[in-house]
Amino acid sequence: MNIMDKYIEKLNTLDFKDMHNEDFMLTWEKSNDELEAVFTMAEALRDLRKNNISSKIFDSGLGVSLFRDNSTRTRFSFTSACNLLGLEVQDLDEGKSQVAHGETVRETANMISFMADVIGIRDDMFIGKGNAYMKEVSNSVKEGNIEGTLEQRPTLVNLQCDIDHPTQAMADTLHLINELGGIENLKGKKVAMTWAYSPSYGKPLSVPQGVIGLLTRFGMDVVLAHPEGYEVMSEVEEVAKKNAETYGGSFTRTNSMEEAFKDADVVYPKSWAPFMAMEKRTNLYSEGDQAGIDQLEKELLKQNAEHKDWECTEELMKTTKEGKAIYMHCLPADITGVSCAEGEVAATVFDRYRKSLYKEASFKPYIIASMIFLSKIKNPQEVLDKLVKESKDRKVK
Amino acid sequence: MNIMDKYIEKLNTLDFKDMHNEDFMLTWEKSNDELEAVFTMAEALRDLRKNNISSKIFDSGLGVSLFRDNSTRTRFSFTSACNLLGLEVQDLDEGKSQVAHGETVRETANMISFMADVIGIRDDMFIGKGNAYMKEVSNSVKEGNIEGTLEQRPTLVNLQCDIDHPTQAMADTLHLINELGGIENLKGKKVAMTWAYSPSYGKPLSVPQGVIGLLTRFGMDVVLAHPEGYEVMSEVEEVAKKNAETYGGSFTRTNSMEEAFKDADVVYPKSWAPFMAMEKRTNLYSEGDQAGIDQLEKELLKQNAEHKDWECTEELMKTTKEGKAIYMHCLPADITGVSCAEGEVAATVFDRYRKSLYKEASFKPYIIASMIFLSKIKNPQEVLDKLVKESKDRKVK
Amino acid sequence: MNIMDKYIEKLNTLDFKDMHNEDFMLTWEKSNDELEAVFTMAEALRDLRKNNISSKIFDSGLGVSLFRDNSTRTRFSFTSACNLLGLEVQDLDEGKSQVAHGETVRETANMISFMADVIGIRDDMFIGKGNAYMKEVSNSVKEGNIEGTLEQRPTLVNLQCDIDHPTQAMADTLHLINELGGIENLKGKKVAMTWAYSPSYGKPLSVPQGVIGLLTRFGMDVVLAHPEGYEVMSEVEEVAKKNAETYGGSFTRTNSMEEAFKDADVVYPKSWAPFMAMEKRTNLYSEGDQAGIDQLEKELLKQNAEHKDWECTEELMKTTKEGKAIYMHCLPADITGVSCAEGEVAATVFDRYRKSLYKEASFKPYIIASMIFLSKIKNPQEVLDKLVKESKDRKVK
Repeated sequence: MNIMDKYIEKLNTLDFKDMHNEDFMLTWEKSNDELEAVFTMAEALRDLRKNNISSKIFDSGLGVSLFRDNSTRTRFSFTSACNLLGLEVQDLDEGKSQVAHGETVRETANMISFMADVIGIRDDMFIGKGNAYMKEVSNSVKEGNIEGTLEQRPTLVNLQCDIDHPTQAMADTLHLINELGGIENLKGKKVAMTWAYSPSYGKPLSVPQGVIGLLTRFGMDVVLAHPEGYEVMSEVEEVAKKNAETYGGSFTRTNSMEEAFKDADVVYPKSWAPFMAMEKRTNLYSEGDQAGIDQLEKELLKQNAEHKDWECTEELMKTTKEGKAIYMHCLPADITGVSCAEGEVAATVFDRYRKSLYKEASFKPYIIASMIFLSKIKNPQEVLDKLVKESKDRKVK
Repeated sequence: MNIMDKYIEKLNTLDFKDMHNEDFMLTWEKSNDELEAVFTMAEALRDLRKNNISSKIFDSGLGVSLFRDNSTRTRFSFTSACNLLGLEVQDLDEGKSQVAHGETVRETANMISFMADVIGIRDDMFIGKGNAYMKEVSNSVKEGNIEGTLEQRPTLVNLQCDIDHPTQAMADTLHLINELGGIENLKGKKVAMTWAYSPSYGKPLSVPQGVIGLLTRFGMDVVLAHPEGYEVMSEVEEVAKKNAETYGGSFTRTNSMEEAFKDADVVYPKSWAPFMAMEKRTNLYSEGDQAGIDQLEKELLKQNAEHKDWECTEELMKTTKEGKAIYMHCLPADITGVSCAEGEVAATVFDRYRKSLYKEASFKPYIIASMIFLSKIKNPQEVLDKLVKESKDRKVK
Repeated sequence: MNIMDKYIEKLNTLDFKDMHNEDFMLTWEKSNDELEAVFTMAEALRDLRKNNISSKIFDSGLGVSLFRDNSTRTRFSFTSACNLLGLEVQDLDEGKSQVAHGETVRETANMISFMADVIGIRDDMFIGKGNAYMKEVSNSVKEGNIEGTLEQRPTLVNLQCDIDHPTQAMADTLHLINELGGIENLKGKKVAMTWAYSPSYGKPLSVPQGVIGLLTRFGMDVVLAHPEGYEVMSEVEEVAKKNAETYGGSFTRTNSMEEAFKDADVVYPKSWAPFMAMEKRTNLYSEGDQAGIDQLEKELLKQNAEHKDWECTEELMKTTKEGKAIYMHCLPADITGVSCAEGEVAATVFDRYRKSLYKEASFKPYIIASMIFLSKIKNPQEVLDKLVKESKDRKVK
C-alpha cells in the first residue's frame, strides 16, 4: 500500500485515455470521467508535494506562457504547475513578442515550440477572439508536429478565454468537492452564480460562464442571477441547459439576487460585463472607433452604477441554506469599504470566508499541473506508482 | 575526511537552530552564532561549487523576487542563489504585478506562494516603508502556512530595505574575513564608513546603516563620517552603539573624512542621501506634493554640491594604516573622471582595488544561498555531508 | 552499438580541441573541422531528444541572455538550448539593466557572471559596435576568470552581431546538409544569396554576410546579388573571396537577381539595409543628429522603393536548377499579399516551401546547444557515450 494507491484505484475506474496528447480548452468538450480524472490527479499531485515527493515528470522542456494581458496570479499558477512537473517557463509577452506586428500565428506558434511541451494561453480581452485564437495556435502546432517541424505536440491549456475559464472553474469545483466531502455530494445542491456590483464595469464573462458550464455537470441546481442587460453568452447558457437535462440538475436564470441566494448551498457573487456591450466594444476596437468606445464606456458606467444594490451582504448570506452557504470568489474581490467604497461583497462576509477563499485559489496550480500530466503521460497510474516508489525528495531532508 | 568536514565542525560549535524556518530581515535580529553560521555555510557552498559538487537541495520549487525597482545585480545574485539550490525564480515585477493597484498585501503574498520556498524582497525607496512592508508579507505567509493555505512557509530574505541591507553587509563582512584571515581578526581594526560625494544625491541609506549595524558586532572600531545634515537613522546608530558596548569595539561619529581615514584598516567611502530629507520626501510623495518634491530636490542638489571635497583620493588613502587600508564599495561606484566628472573615488584608487571589489561582490550570491539553506534545512551539517558523499557533478565531467 | 556511435565516430575524425572553453563569435574564426563538429554535435543532441534521452550536462548554472533589442525567436532558441543542457536563463534586458546608464561593461559583465556558464549576446543594431561590444564582454569575463573573480569562464555565443549571424548561418547550413544528403554534397552547388524588396528598409546585414562567409567554406558557388548601393561590408566580401580560393568554390557579385537565380541549387532572397547607409546612421546616432536620421530614413525609403521588382516570384523560381532550387529564409519573411502588399517573396512560393522553412528554423536551438556543449565539455565524445548509457528519460515514460 502506498499513498498513491487510492488515486490510482480511482483513475482505474475512469475512461480518460482520449486526454493523452490533447489540449484542455473548454470543460464541456470533456467527458465527466475526464473531468474527474483531472480532479483526481490534482489531488494526487497535491498529496505528493505534501509528502515531499518529487512529481517531476520532465527532465527538461519548456512551458510557454502566452498572455495577452499581464496577470500576476495566472502567471504564478502556470509557473508553479510547470515547475512542479519539471518544465521551465518562457514567457511570450506582448512586450517581448512580435505577435502583434503582423506575423502569422502559425509561424510564431511553431517557432516558439521546438522544445515546448506545454503552451498556457490567456486571451480573454475580446469577445469572439480568444478561444478562436487558441484554436488557431493549437491547430498550428498540431500540424507542425504532423509535418515533422515539431518533435512533440505541445499541449495547450486554456488559462482563460472569452468563453470559458476552465482552470478557474475546475479549481472552484475541486474546492467544492473538498468542502462538501466528495463529488457525489454536489448533486442536488443549489448554487447561486450571481452578478455583483463593482466600480470596474468590464470584468470578463469567462468566470460566470465557466461556472455555469461546469457545475451543471454534477447534478447541481445552478441559478444564474444578474440585472437585465447583463446576459452572458447565449451559447454557454445552452450548454448549461443541456448539462442540466443530461446530468439531472437544473439551470435557471433570474434577475433577482435575493431569489438566487434563497436557500443556496453555494454562492458566487461576482461582477462581469454585459455580453452585448463587450461584443459591441470588440467591434468598435476592430473599427478603431475611439469616440464610440468612449461613449460606450460612459453608458456602461452609468448602467453599472444603477445596480449598486447587488452586493453580497450579511443579510443576504442569512437567507442561504441555514445561513451557511459556501461563499466563493475567483479573487481579487471588490470588498466594500476595503478595496472600494461600494463593492461586490461586505467586508465582514469576505473576512469570514477569507481562509476558505485562499484554499479555493490554492487548487489552481494543481489543476493546471493535472491537465498537463494527463495530456503528456500515457499511463498516468503507472507513473504515479513509479514516483512514489522512487520517492525522490522534493526538498532534501 | 571530506572537504565539508571543516565547515561541519565549525557549524557544530554554533547555535543557530532558531534560523530554521525563519526569515532574514535585519542582521541585529540575529545572534553572532547565527551570523557566523551564515558565513560558514556561504563558504561551504562556494567550496562545493568550486569542486563541481551539486548543492541542489530542491528538486522543484520557486524563489519569488519581489522588487519595487529594477536592479540587475540584485536580480542576478538572487537568481544565482536560487538556481544553486534548485529553485526557479519567478519575478513579481511592478510591471507584471497588480500589487500597486490596491490589492491587499496579504492576499497577493498568499496567492504567489502556493509553491514558493523563498521570497526575496527589495524595497528601499521610501523611508519607513520598506521593512514594514516586508514584515507584512512575512506575517501574511506565516499566517497562510498556519491556516493551511500554504503547505510550506516561504522564507523571506531582505535584499535591501530602508533600514538594512543585510545581504550586502554580510557579503562585505565575509570579504573582510577573507582579507584579514579570519573573523577573529576583525577585532580592534578601524573601519571608516564615510560619506562621499556623488552627482546623484539620493542613494539609499541602507548600505552605511547595514555596515555600522553589522561591523560593530565583531569588536571593530567603527567610525561613521559624513557632512553635517547627512545623518543616518538614529535607531541604527543606537544599534551600533549598543553593539560596540556588547562586543568590545567602538562606534564614533565625525564630520571629518580625514579623521575617519586616519590609520583606518578599512575604508568604505560611499554617497548616501540625508535621512531627514528622505523622510521628508517620503511624506511629500504620500501627499502627492510634486511642487514640494521638486523644491526639495533642488535644495538637496545644492546641499550635495557643497561637499565635492568628500572624495576618496590617493592622498587620503596614504593616511590609512600603512597606507594600505582595504577599500570597499558595494558597486557601482561613482569614479572621478570615469563614470562622472567628480565622484566618490579617484580613478587610480578604484583601479588598484578593482579586483578586490569584484571579489567582495562575488560573495553575495553565496550569502543569499546560505541564508536560504539555513532557513529551509533543519540539519544543515547532515545535508552538507550528504551532498559531498553523493558528489553529484554540477557540470558533467 | 548505440545511437550516439555514429556521431562519436565522426567527432573522432575531427580536430576541435581548441573549442574547449572558447567563445563562438564569427564562423570564419573557426576551422572547418570545428564547424563540422558543431553540425555533428547538433545532430547528436537532436537525436538524443528524439529518443527521449536527457542531454542535461548541467545540474545547475545560468545562461545569461544579453539582447540589445527584443527578439522572441532568438530568445526562445537560446532558452531552448540552455534548458536542453540544464541551464536556467536569466535575461539582462535593457529595461532590467543598468548597462545603458554608464556602468562600465567590464564591471557589469563580471557582476552578472558569478554563476554564468554561458552568455548569449545579440547586438546587431549599430554597424561597427555589436561585435566590438561582444569582444569587450568576452575579454572582461576571461580576465575575471583569470583574476579569480569568476570561478568559471562564461562562454559567449554570438546570437547576431553587426558582422555575422553564426547561429543562423550554421542552422541554415545544417538544413542544407540534411536536404542535400551530406556536407560533401554542398560542393559545386550554386547558391544565390540575393537582396529582395521589403517595405521595411533597415534589416540587418548579418544574415547575408553570415551566409556568404560560411557557405563559401564548403566549395559552393556563392553569388551575392543586390541592387547598386546595397553592398555588404567589404571585409566580409573579402572573407568570402578568400574562402572560395581556399575551399575550391567561387564567390561572385552581381546586380541582377535573374543572373543569381539562373540554375541555382539554393536561393536565399532577403531584404537588407545598405551598409554605407547603416554606417552613416550609426554615426548620426552617436552625434544625436535626429534631423539627419530623419532625412536619411526618407532617402532610404525612396531608394528602397525603386527595387520592388526584386521579388522571388514563381517565374524566377522556374529559372533555377530544374525549377527546384531550395528556397531559404531566416524568417519571418515579407510575403507579397500576406504580410505586406509587395514583399520579398510570392505567396505561392513561400507556401510551397513553408514546411522546409520551418525545418530550417528548427535547427537553431540545437546549433546553439552544440556550440555551448563543445565549449563547456572537454571530452564531448565520452559525455555523449555516458548520456546514452545512462539513458535518463527526458520525459517519464
